[in-house]
Formats: sequence, structure tokens, C-alpha cells
Amino acid sequence: MRAGPSPEEIRRHNLGTLLRHVHLGGPASRAVLADRMGLNRSTIMALTAELTGAGLVREELPKDTGRAGRPSLVVRPESDRVYVLAFDVGVDRLIAARVGLGGTVLDRREMVRPREGFELADVVGVLAGFARQMVRKTQSDTVCVGAGAAFCGMVRRSDGMVRFGPNIGWVDEAFGTELSRRLGLGLPVSVDNDANLGALAEHERGAGVGCDNLIYLHGDVGIGGGIIVGGRLLGGEGGYGGEVGHMVVKPVGGLACGCGSHGCLEAEVGERALLAAAERSPELIGREAVRSVVDAADRGDIAARDALHQVGDWLGIGVANLVNIFNPGLVIFGGTLREIYLGSAAQVRSRMATNVLAVSRERVRLRTPALGDDATLVGAAELAFSEVLTNPLEVLARATA
Amino acid sequence: MRAGPSPEEIRRHNLGTLLRHVHLGGPASRAVLADRMGLNRSTIMALTAELTGAGLVREELPKDTGRAGRPSLVVRPESDRVYVLAFDVGVDRLIAARVGLGGTVLDRREMVRPREGFELADVVGVLAGFARQMVRKTQSDTVCVGAGAAFCGMVRRSDGMVRFGPNIGWVDEAFGTELSRRLGLGLPVSVDNDANLGALAEHERGAGVGCDNLIYLHGDVGIGGGIIVGGRLLGGEGGYGGEVGHMVVKPVGGLACGCGSHGCLEAEVGERALLAAAERSPELIGREAVRSVVDAADRGDIAARDALHQVGDWLGIGVANLVNIFNPGLVIFGGTLREIYLGSAAQVRSRMATNVLAVSRERVRLRTPALGDDATLVGAAELAFSEVLTNPLEVLARATA
Repeated sequence: MRAGPSPEEIRRHNLGTLLRHVHLGGPASRAVLADRMGLNRSTIMALTAELTGAGLVREELPKDTGRAGRPSLVVRPESDRVYVLAFDVGVDRLIAARVGLGGTVLDRREMVRPREGFELADVVGVLAGFARQMVRKTQSDTVCVGAGAAFCGMVRRSDGMVRFGPNIGWVDEAFGTELSRRLGLGLPVSVDNDANLGALAEHERGAGVGCDNLIYLHGDVGIGGGIIVGGRLLGGEGGYGGEVGHMVVKPVGGLACGCGSHGCLEAEVGERALLAAAERSPELIGREAVRSVVDAADRGDIAARDALHQVGDWLGIGVANLVNIFNPGLVIFGGTLREIYLGSAAQVRSRMATNVLAVSRERVRLRTPALGDDATLVGAAELAFSEVLTNPLEVLARATA
Repeated sequence: MRAGPSPEEIRRHNLGTLLRHVHLGGPASRAVLADRMGLNRSTIMALTAELTGAGLVREELPKDTGRAGRPSLVVRPESDRVYVLAFDVGVDRLIAARVGLGGTVLDRREMVRPREGFELADVVGVLAGFARQMVRKTQSDTVCVGAGAAFCGMVRRSDGMVRFGPNIGWVDEAFGTELSRRLGLGLPVSVDNDANLGALAEHERGAGVGCDNLIYLHGDVGIGGGIIVGGRLLGGEGGYGGEVGHMVVKPVGGLACGCGSHGCLEAEVGERALLAAAERSPELIGREAVRSVVDAADRGDIAARDALHQVGDWLGIGVANLVNIFNPGLVIFGGTLREIYLGSAAQVRSRMATNVLAVSRERVRLRTPALGDDATLVGAAELAFSEVLTNPLEVLARATA
């Protein structure tokens, strides 16, 4: 338990908070910022002047306000000048993007990742190549202030080491370090689990804005969870928290899971379970195959509908357990779980009604991501922005040195 | 996102932090406090002077330090003068205690609660009676700075309303308000779920000191969970988080649970499950009956041993799920789960080995409470102290007005 902050720490906090307001909330007048931050306008003016001097924001006269008197200047993030690199490694796809301060995707590359024979060096090579193409196209006065990546597995946050990626076959691969080296920008790459970053993105920019207790479930081949508790991402001792896919829901007679156990939520609800239950040919895999089952069920295909109902029942048990444990305001179904949830919402809701305690059922809503398929990528960008939003002037000085 | 704190907020924070240090850590020299809080000694001296003036701490010369030079004065909490009232309502027992600043139990009363025909008015009557007896014995210069209660069910923290106590048969009972009224001290009573308070107590004073991610499981008739995430108690939207007892572990053929569902952890591992599996007569209930099964298993009673192994296997599944979800450093088994865990540790550990992902298994330890059966009561006292530790001078001024 430390003493309260020093004046220098408060100044840094206030600079970061002002920048975060315009980054997340968009351009805002000094008057509005003063109100939101609980500061007077002269302090806001001084903070804005520092951020303007560093090239992080600019001030503009607002469009005609229709009111008499001198209008309050509007503070706007320098979205074209200050950017981050964001990466998303799913089992089936690789994405790289250049995202401007304020959250605008300025440029973007994507490819399908082959499931076989595409290892660390290949993944890093593709992503670094995409980044180089995008950086080459930027103006000379632009500045890259960070890099972040979402990965479909368990990541050690301190150095971006992938500890375990059961559905991609990686164990202890130095993904963050290697990607940073191949980028050659002298920037570390912050890495986190994709579901964690989906949760972060939906909390800051999506369906979860204003909700400080939410669960984001991400379906890829497996099922990941990102959980916001009291406004902060649940990390746990090593940053591996949120592995809800390996909650055992079917202890007797459960399907084998990539983790080595049986009856995990991921084994009963993931891609393989759905496709097998729908009696799809083993060659059909991936996001499109999952969507085709949901579409077929919509069109009245009995096998597809039964498969979806069966999977939805297990999903409902998993969600009900999580709602009892976390008492969240919101559960968001992302990735392929978006379609699976939409196709089996009746089963999920039925389990909620049976298994969730009334006091926790009162306030929880079930939703799909406002950011759609980009939730994890947007989260990677937010992870990359986090340092400049904590300590704007130093990070910018370092990036432009 | 607000601006950084004002000088007045920082001063209040520093006063509270210093008081918290001596409350939790015991008497400490000014030099040690300066070091722990990252402040210089003159600031510590000024803060201590204010707390001394208010009668919250006193300063003393240390015992002979054996070193030359002027020794640093030792700051000591006024444990005999400043106290709280703490209450613990379990299914089978009612406890009231008077606890001094610094955490010393100064006085204590306890009774067995009959399972039938002992409702809100009876419980509140007994607790208020105990409190009056204890307060009557205090010196005239003592001051009560708060009251807190642990309850074996789901509690709305804002007003201490018991929303649901399945094992005690309460729904929407105004426990906090009613206890406050019957105490007649003009003090509100803060109420929280007993497992939450057990977690808080073990985190601040017990097995979990220094571990910011821990799970405390409390066995009474049911099973409750208190979970510390990133150093803070998991509350959720309504304060009902941590209801791990209603995680479904046996979806097919599970036992009926007091919540209306089937196959909940509490139904498979709680008192009734253990006693039924051990073929005990239905008249045998409560903590002693549970202990007698564990003792019998120890002595080689086959039915008792089998029952304990069966219950331990379900407990292991529940714990493994929680470890995957939270990546905690510590799981603590309290209340009757202490004995059940000690009697079935092999089953629990076996499930951990099978079902917990290796990266989360690396750092988790399984323990019993350092505070023993008093964890929930100590937590109630800490809840009662929380306001004076946040805002010492105002709370003391109000209490002595």
C-alpha cells in the first residue's frame, strides 16, 4: 500500500486520461473534456497545449454552433499521424492492420492460414511482410507508437511467449519476441490471448461500453474467454485466466479435447463437435463450415438443427456456470460462437432459466459483438495504444527519437 | 475516466494507508512506515500526529534497540479504544464479536442456531443481544467505528438485504437494516456473503497475504466462493459474484440442489451429499456430522471413505474448472470444506492433474485457512473497519459526535 501520487504522476495521469477520452470518445470540446474529467478549463487548456505540442492532438474551431459567444475549441486525435500496428493470429486466418489514434483502421491485410505446415517462422514472416507493406505507404511525418497482437492460445504477457496453443499446435514459441525482431522497428510487440483482447475491445468500443463486468466468449476452433471484472481484464497469476473453454461440462462420456482432457466446454461446443454432430464430412473445417451448418439449420436441415441444439445446450450450461460465478451485466458471443449462439439461443436461454440463480439472472444480457469479427483485432490495437495512453509525452518522444 | 486526485484526496488516502499499515501489519516504526509507503519521515510524522490527535494510534519509544542514536518512534493502533462489531450468520451458528483496531478479538459470543423456526427476528434479536452485552462492558472512552456481518447467502451490499439464502430459507429479508435498527447505535451494518468475507480475511490476514489472485471456498450446508481478482474482491454487477456452489458439475443424473436446479457443485459436495453417500441417518446434520464422517474415514470406515472419495472427485472437478477460469495463486478450503478437502486431497489433486491446463497448474497452491473457522468472522470485522481505513478522521469524528 503506497502513498498517493506525486504531482508529476498526476500530471502524467491527466495527460493520458485526456488523450484516452478523445481516443475512445472521439473529438470533444474543451468544455466537454473539463466536465468529463472534473477539471477546470484552464487546466484542460494547459494539458491540451502539451499534447498538441507533441503532435498527439490538434485543436480546431467547431462547426458553427449556432450559439453566440466564443465557442470552445474541439480537441481531435491526430489519427493520420500517430498509429499502431495490430495483428490477429487465429487458427485459420492472419490479419495485420495499421490503426490510427482514435481507433480508425487506416490500412489492413489478411490471409487464410493453412492448418498444416505453417509454423512460427511462417506466421511471423507473413505478418511482418504485411506490416512492411503498410508502413512503406505512410507519409514521412507519421509515427508508430506501438504494436500489439492477438493470439488464439495462452500467452505469457511479459514477453509475448505463446505457452500453449492447442488448436494451432504451438508450445512455448517466442512469438512476441520473434515478431518484434522481424518487424525491425525497434518496438516490442505486446501479445495477449485473442478472447482477452476481444473482451477489452468490446468493453472500450463495443457492446460493453459502460458495463464493467462482462464476459466475451470467442469461438475459433476452440473456445476462449475474456473476462472484465470491475472494469479490468481478469489476468490471474500468470495472465492465463479466462480459459473457460477447458471448464469440464460433461464429466461422464465427454468428447476428447485438444488439451488432453475430456468433456471440456470447447470439446462439446467447438468447431469439431458441431461439425461431427451435424455429420459433416471430416474435410469440411473452419469458419465457413460452421456457418454452413447454421445456415442449413435455418433452412430446416434436421441433422444441422439437432446438432446446433445439442451444442447450444452445452453452451448454455457453460454460460450459466459463468453467470453464477461472475454475476456479469453482459455475455458477448464472438467469433464462430456468434453464429452458434444465434442458431441456438433458445437452448442457451433455457439453461440460463434453469441453472442461473435469480439474482444473477436479473441483470445479465446476452449479445453479439458490436465490433463483429474485428473485436480481437481492435483489442490488439488497444493493447498497442495502452502505453501511449498511460504516458503520452515520453512514449511519443521515444517513438520519434 | 476522471482526473488525478486533489491534494485533499491524497492527504485522506495517505492517512488511511498509514492506519491500514498498522491495522494489518501491527505496530511499526516511523522509519519502516516511511519506507513501506514511499514517503519521507517528516510527512509520516505529520500524518501520525493527525491520527494520534484523533485517538486512532499512539506513538511509543521502542524497546531497547541496542543501537546508538535516537530511535524511530513506534506507531501502534489504539486497539483497546477503537473497535468494530462483527457478526457471522451461518446455517448452524450465530457469532458476535467486538474486534479492536489492529484485528484483536476483544470479546466474543456464540450460539448454535436451530435449523427450524429461527427466523430473521430471532437471529437479529440474538445478535443484537450479544452486542449489547459486549458494549455494556466497555470503558467510557471507547468508540465503535463500524459494524459488519457475514451471511450464508446472497446479499445486496448496498443495504444488507439478503436476497436469497437457500440453506436458511430466506428470500428478500432486510437483515442489515433490521440488525442496525436493533443495535440502536446509529450505525449502519455492512453485510456481505460469508465466503466473500472469508476470502477478504484470508487475503488480508491469512494464508493469502501477498497473493492477489485467490479463491476461498466455504463449506457450510452449501458451498460458497469468495474470489480475489487482481487484489480486489470479485463482486459483479450486483455483488452476487462468486456463487461457485451453483456451477453445474454433473449435468446428467445430478442431485437436487436447494436452488431448484440439479447437479450443482453444492448438491454433489455439500453436507447433504456427503452424509447421504456415507449412509448416515438423516437426523445427523451439521458441522459435527461432517467431521464424524471424515474421522470415520480416517479410522478405515469403508462407507465413509468411499463417500469422501466420491465427494472429493466432484470437488476436484469444481476446483479444476475454477483454476482454469481464474489462474489463481491459491485455493483455500474453509468451513466444513477444510475437513472434506483434507480427507479427499488425493481425489482433488488427481482431477487437477487431469483437468487443469499446465500453465495454470504451475503456480497454484491448495491450502486450508490460516484463520481457521474464524475466517468469515474476521472478514466481517474487516468489512466494518473499511470505512475508517478509507477516511479515518471523518469517520472517527462522526463516531464520537
